[in-house]
Amino acid sequence: MTRRLLLAAFLFHPGGSHVSGWRHDDAEPHRHVDIDYYADFAQTAERGIFDTLFLADGLYFWDRFTSGIDHYGQTRLEPLTLLSALAARTSRIGLAATVSTSYNEPYHVARALASLDHISRGRAAWNLVTSRYPEEARNFGGDAHLDHALRYERGREFVDVVQLLWDSWADDAILADRTSGLFADPEKLHVTDHRGDHFAVRGPLNIARPPQGHPLLFQAGGSEAGQELAAATADAVFARSLPLAEAQRFSAGLKARVVAHGRDPGDVAILPQYRPVVGETTADARAEAARILASTPDALIVEDVAHSIGQVLGPDPDAVIAVESDAAGGVAAGIANESKSPNRRLARLQAGERLTARELYAESFWESVSVGTAFEIADDIQERFETGAADGFVVQALTQPTGFREFVDQVVPELQLRGLTRRAYEESTLGERFGRARPERRVPESVLS
Amino acid sequence: MTRRLLLAAFLFHPGGSHVSGWRHDDAEPHRHVDIDYYADFAQTAERGIFDTLFLADGLYFWDRFTSGIDHYGQTRLEPLTLLSALAARTSRIGLAATVSTSYNEPYHVARALASLDHISRGRAAWNLVTSRYPEEARNFGGDAHLDHALRYERGREFVDVVQLLWDSWADDAILADRTSGLFADPEKLHVTDHRGDHFAVRGPLNIARPPQGHPLLFQAGGSEAGQELAAATADAVFARSLPLAEAQRFSAGLKARVVAHGRDPGDVAILPQYRPVVGETTADARAEAARILASTPDALIVEDVAHSIGQVLGPDPDAVIAVESDAAGGVAAGIANESKSPNRRLARLQAGERLTARELYAESFWESVSVGTAFEIADDIQERFETGAADGFVVQALTQPTGFREFVDQVVPELQLRGLTRRAYEESTLGERFGRARPERRVPESVLS
Repeated sequence: MTRRLLLAAFLFHPGGSHVSGWRHDDAEPHRHVDIDYYADFAQTAERGIFDTLFLADGLYFWDRFTSGIDHYGQTRLEPLTLLSALAARTSRIGLAATVSTSYNEPYHVARALASLDHISRGRAAWNLVTSRYPEEARNFGGDAHLDHALRYERGREFVDVVQLLWDSWADDAILADRTSGLFADPEKLHVTDHRGDHFAVRGPLNIARPPQGHPLLFQAGGSEAGQELAAATADAVFARSLPLAEAQRFSAGLKARVVAHGRDPGDVAILPQYRPVVGETTADARAEAARILASTPDALIVEDVAHSIGQVLGPDPDAVIAVESDAAGGVAAGIANESKSPNRRLARLQAGERLTARELYAESFWESVSVGTAFEIADDIQERFETGAADGFVVQALTQPTGFREFVDQVVPELQLRGLTRRAYEESTLGERFGRARPERRVPESVLS
Repeated sequence: MTRRLLLAAFLFHPGGSHVSGWRHDDAEPHRHVDIDYYADFAQTAERGIFDTLFLADGLYFWDRFTSGIDHYGQTRLEPLTLLSALAARTSRIGLAATVSTSYNEPYHVARALASLDHISRGRAAWNLVTSRYPEEARNFGGDAHLDHALRYERGREFVDVVQLLWDSWADDAILADRTSGLFADPEKLHVTDHRGDHFAVRGPLNIARPPQGHPLLFQAGGSEAGQELAAATADAVFARSLPLAEAQRFSAGLKARVVAHGRDPGDVAILPQYRPVVGETTADARAEAARILASTPDALIVEDVAHSIGQVLGPDPDAVIAVESDAAGGVAAGIANESKSPNRRLARLQAGERLTARELYAESFWESVSVGTAFEIADDIQERFETGAADGFVVQALTQPTGFREFVDQVVPELQLRGLTRRAYEESTLGERFGRARPERRVPESVLS
């Protein structure tokens, strides 16, 4: 079969992927906990024959800075309840829930995702994250987040236990034979009886095997440990946006890891984030993007940059930043940068460049977005797809509903015209849509011996 | 206002409240993980103007005995995902999810229930349980269940933290003011910063205050600690079925506890289980009940009685039981009875009565059910309601869909005729329907000081 571009519709901040997307003229910020708002989003995605919704999540409210409370639209519905409700309001689109392995129990997660898979008739996916923020730890009894390596070890074991629980019952274990009175065949049930470094879970799960066998597994995280976990276990990887050549290198590197784990490179779809701003003309699109950028409150710009360089800044976003000698990821008045990725902003300031917070913020903004006509954006998407930089995209419209609708109504038809995506759903489960074979049931060795 | 009978539609075993309800001629056991099956159930309840659905739950699959696998219909959807989907398939009925405080985290529970409350526009309720089975502990890293007193201490603290999290945001905290760029008013947000014996949770919750302020709190559990927790915190109590005089004593005792906690006796609705079997004539109803009883496989009867008396029994349900001296709640070949309630079956056997497992099982069955015409059942319900034995009932039809439909189509109209229940929904939230004032937001003392 011809390789087909995969499309996921992303939502984290309900007002769109730009933090001030909720300020757009056509935004509907008073609807951020209104189920109909999300149903509209899901139905728009389904109209665009998106393969799946992709709901990001965090187990915290980001109140480190006042601007996080004042200006972010961070109040949102919980993903598993939301997607279960959306299962009833949609018919074909996938439903990917972000669920952390660091602050959950495998039995609950296996059960809820199996339930969502049954409720949606095979449309559930799990976006596995390990929760990297201290804010999350503090909501679950801890004072600091788990060590990075330990989080991924736990994540790996978590996936293993969840999959064993999904396999508690053979697909044909439920007999429901009224005449004999046999509800289930005990020979087709196994007890997981897992005892590992992080979890002890007896099982079996109290729900029949999911329609997909295993709901699809997505994984985000570009770190070494994150890529290894993805290469070993994931069906799709959510990657960050990179310039074309870098994206090709990332993709090739990850596919090589997949092969090293004895899997086919096609087994893991690489889905980078894609932040489109569409216009009738290129100039219109740039003007719209500039309006969205300009909607960012100054306090938020200053605190974003302060956070990223690990240094307290004054309130004026147009002041040239005097970088402190101890700024590099250190803790200054409660400002810590936990990221392990190279800090370009800080490096430039330390190299003596004279830059303001507004300039640094604007640069990051323009680097992250793809701005143009529907035709130009389709060109960019096609190039990235056809040159191996991506198997599809996680579309992060900067504004919701407007930006997302524009992508669906203007870019998607152009992708369809080019035969990159389809005009209708064909397969019935999400796994089939991703070209994944339905996983065989695995019985633990302890049960077989 | 006139006191009105409350009705809850119970579901645990998807085939109905008799363990072999799934064997009924009109049962649909192949639909036990089919969302449409549950939507039919919910819509039937809504047709009967039931106040709420009441989904019981357990965090385990009961495989202690082979008959638990062979004959029980125990595969089910997970309550929070199921109720979220049903929120979209219903419009007025309450959605009560059973959630354990022993194997969950307050942040997750607060968030999911708040989300369900938003999704359903104020119809969520939480049936708090503390999970008493060792099977549950073994799915969450433990080898034995928590000590009874400790479970309730933890439960009490759990409720407190969840309610504080729900109160993170004032009802008017979200401004969503596009012009000023102010999304929320930071003065109207508080950090919970709870540090107790069982939990440390910083907060705030990342979702706006639920429409009901706090989703309704139901509590099951007749133990001393359970009644105390209910009297202090619950909006409704799920009680077991008792003969009228005993039920009146239980109700009076619990209301006295409620008053001792400084609350109004009407603040806690007492909702005993009610297991109806309806027929055109009394004889028809008895015949139907007898058929349901007779559908119980012998192995299940033997193992039920063996479990209750704590003694292994032979396979013949018609053999007279020779009780062992060490049977009383002891462990015999893996058979333990964890119940702390007086064991009438064992006492009678120990007193020298010659009884078979089938006789003991049948006696329990007939004691638990209410059998008769719609008129007779309405009489019984009316008497219990009007003499203070109950504020309403948790209706546990023995078979589903048949038994439940018969109750809705035959008994409910009779209750409506008598003015005990209504012909239409009036209030918009579940809390209003229970006559509960919307809880004021509570700000922790640490924040106020």
